Amino acid sequence: MRVDGVRLSAAHCGLKRNGDKDLALIELAPESVTAAVFTQNAFCAAPVQIARRNLAHAAPRALLINAGNANAGTGREGLQNAERCCTAMARALRCEHHEILPFSTGVIGEPLPVHKITGAIEVLRHELDAEGWTGAAAAIMTTDTRPKLVTREMYIRGETLTVTGIAKGAGMIKPNMATMLAFVATDARVRLDDLQVLVEAAAGGSFNCITVDGDTSTNDACTLTATGKAGVSLTPHDDAWPVFAHTVENVFVELAQALIEDAEGATKFVTVRVQGGATRDECFDVAYTIAESPLVKTALYASDPNWGRILAAIGRAGVPGLDIARINIDLDDVRVVSSGERDAGYQETDGQRILEQDRPSVNVDLGRGFEKATVWTCDLSLDYVRINAEYRT
Amino acid sequence: MRVDGVRLSAAHCGLKRNGDKDLALIELAPESVTAAVFTQNAFCAAPVQIARRNLAHAAPRALLINAGNANAGTGREGLQNAERCCTAMARALRCEHHEILPFSTGVIGEPLPVHKITGAIEVLRHELDAEGWTGAAAAIMTTDTRPKLVTREMYIRGETLTVTGIAKGAGMIKPNMATMLAFVATDARVRLDDLQVLVEAAAGGSFNCITVDGDTSTNDACTLTATGKAGVSLTPHDDAWPVFAHTVENVFVELAQALIEDAEGATKFVTVRVQGGATRDECFDVAYTIAESPLVKTALYASDPNWGRILAAIGRAGVPGLDIARINIDLDDVRVVSSGERDAGYQETDGQRILEQDRPSVNVDLGRGFEKATVWTCDLSLDYVRINAEYRT
Repeated sequence: MRVDGVRLSAAHCGLKRNGDKDLALIELAPESVTAAVFTQNAFCAAPVQIARRNLAHAAPRALLINAGNANAGTGREGLQNAERCCTAMARALRCEHHEILPFSTGVIGEPLPVHKITGAIEVLRHELDAEGWTGAAAAIMTTDTRPKLVTREMYIRGETLTVTGIAKGAGMIKPNMATMLAFVATDARVRLDDLQVLVEAAAGGSFNCITVDGDTSTNDACTLTATGKAGVSLTPHDDAWPVFAHTVENVFVELAQALIEDAEGATKFVTVRVQGGATRDECFDVAYTIAESPLVKTALYASDPNWGRILAAIGRAGVPGLDIARINIDLDDVRVVSSGERDAGYQETDGQRILEQDRPSVNVDLGRGFEKATVWTCDLSLDYVRINAEYRT
Repeated sequence: MRVDGVRLSAAHCGLKRNGDKDLALIELAPESVTAAVFTQNAFCAAPVQIARRNLAHAAPRALLINAGNANAGTGREGLQNAERCCTAMARALRCEHHEILPFSTGVIGEPLPVHKITGAIEVLRHELDAEGWTGAAAAIMTTDTRPKLVTREMYIRGETLTVTGIAKGAGMIKPNMATMLAFVATDARVRLDDLQVLVEAAAGGSFNCITVDGDTSTNDACTLTATGKAGVSLTPHDDAWPVFAHTVENVFVELAQALIEDAEGATKFVTVRVQGGATRDECFDVAYTIAESPLVKTALYASDPNWGRILAAIGRAGVPGLDIARINIDLDDVRVVSSGERDAGYQETDGQRILEQDRPSVNVDLGRGFEKATVWTCDLSLDYVRINAEYRT
């Protein structure tokens, strides 16, 4: 699990009312390089703005993450508060304030209580430990019910390389919005521009393929750090690069799937595969329209093989010139719809049996090309509404 | 209420299991002209395809509507079944089969039991009555809890003109999808091309401005008939046209709002107004993103003035170059967000008081132009999930 060059710690500073740890520090050794992707939401939180700016300025020496307050919708004061946290952290770690990347997740629109965070900085620094991944994974949780931690090893040029990452949820901080954070590190040595390409590809095939409710957070962020401590340098031109990139991508995919498995109110993990599209974009459009349809999601919750809702979602996905008469739909390997109609051999009990499983798949063939896309999602349950309608304390 | 030249009837033919009327006939006098708009869903039901084709062929003499079976996803057999109903109806009314427009709403993917419908055709013909609007409004209901009927009169050139319409719900037939049908008639005389422009404008400002769950039906259809029986001819060049068009549009808007008031599980009727946009389209994009956000809708259900969710929905609406720092949000007339942050004078109890009402409004100013748009929606309640997760009988 440990990644040479990375030490982590966690502390309780008072943002979570239940006394759980709510602050995490990830220290990165000198010469580490870090690439990142951030939320596409035009309304992005203060820490996202500061992290983006600092990252453009210098290679980060530490990531400082708080849970319980998103520091979003907080204007100029929010930016100053994020900077104050960075400055205090930098002083403790004897580096520059722009070498700290701040991340926040939690309630929107509340001032960040900076003194609580700065008051815990000495503890954070003191507790730093290469074994601290689990504690950090727990500290960044909000409505997540369990920490998400994935680690993989690979063998390249006689060395064991490690990729370890933590993430927190497509859940919702009580009572606020879904925020997704992920922090991944490897001890390989990779140039920043190659790492940036990799983090974008890996996020594109993982976190950007999941949806709980279609609500993009203001605080989403994902970093990938290469510490170089394993003494193995890798570039996309190396024979070993595909193994490395694939391992990193697998860590991302497993973290992303772990978020869906722990999504708010979810009772099912649902894979939506769309193939036979003319373009990859239209496959994603169809997959997301299915995955975000309240009617499809409530039918999944009920284990109801209501293929009319799936077909109707496909029909409204905005695919130009779509011919419904060419569409096939399978639930797992059971053919439900052939050429836009109920398959002659389909029995509703077969469809129901598939959907009664914990991890059903909805497989659509558009019959118009060779592109495909996969999206992971969950059902829409009574608990989803309960959790998100729960009034603010 | 009565529109000279229009007679209606309703019957029970066995599609609704509870014995309620499930079949309606709207007979239109010779020389009536009818314009229509249909679902934009690429997956459109058999009756929609037949109605569109017949409408292109001749002025309809009757609209035949069944509730309880959508005749969608039924392929070639579905088309033949819709045509069989038209043929039987035409024989009874002594007209051509393409002078009948068929409409269906209900379960998807089940064969239409044609014999049940044709068996009731004599009753339908016999019961035709100019006072039959209320009965027809009830017969086309599915999960609607009450019929939707709107009538307005206007005085033009010394004559009283009437516009009367019925609609059925943004609800869901057990256990299937939302289908919206609306049938409006006036006794004015209007040319078909003018009527088509009017029905598109009226639908654009009414039915196309409502959303319950974003799931476009396969069967949506809306017709506007002008019988000409009042002896008043109107064209868009007449001074009286604006009064006429405005009255028609008001009937459409009231019917559309009645659908939202009776939406599945809805506890609140919510108006989302977006102004200050650079284009009307971006205002609609923002309004729909707010109106369809599960997080915003569950917060509305909870009467939780969770403005962070509204701001985050605005941020992900895809408006190019959107500057969150220029955005204001009011709940009714209470300023909640100023320039992208919580308004200095805002008290959460004020926001909560607004949302505890039955008909709150969310008002957004994007601060970048002069365009605007309004969308009507409802909250996302536990009952919505219960209704739509209810397993098929």
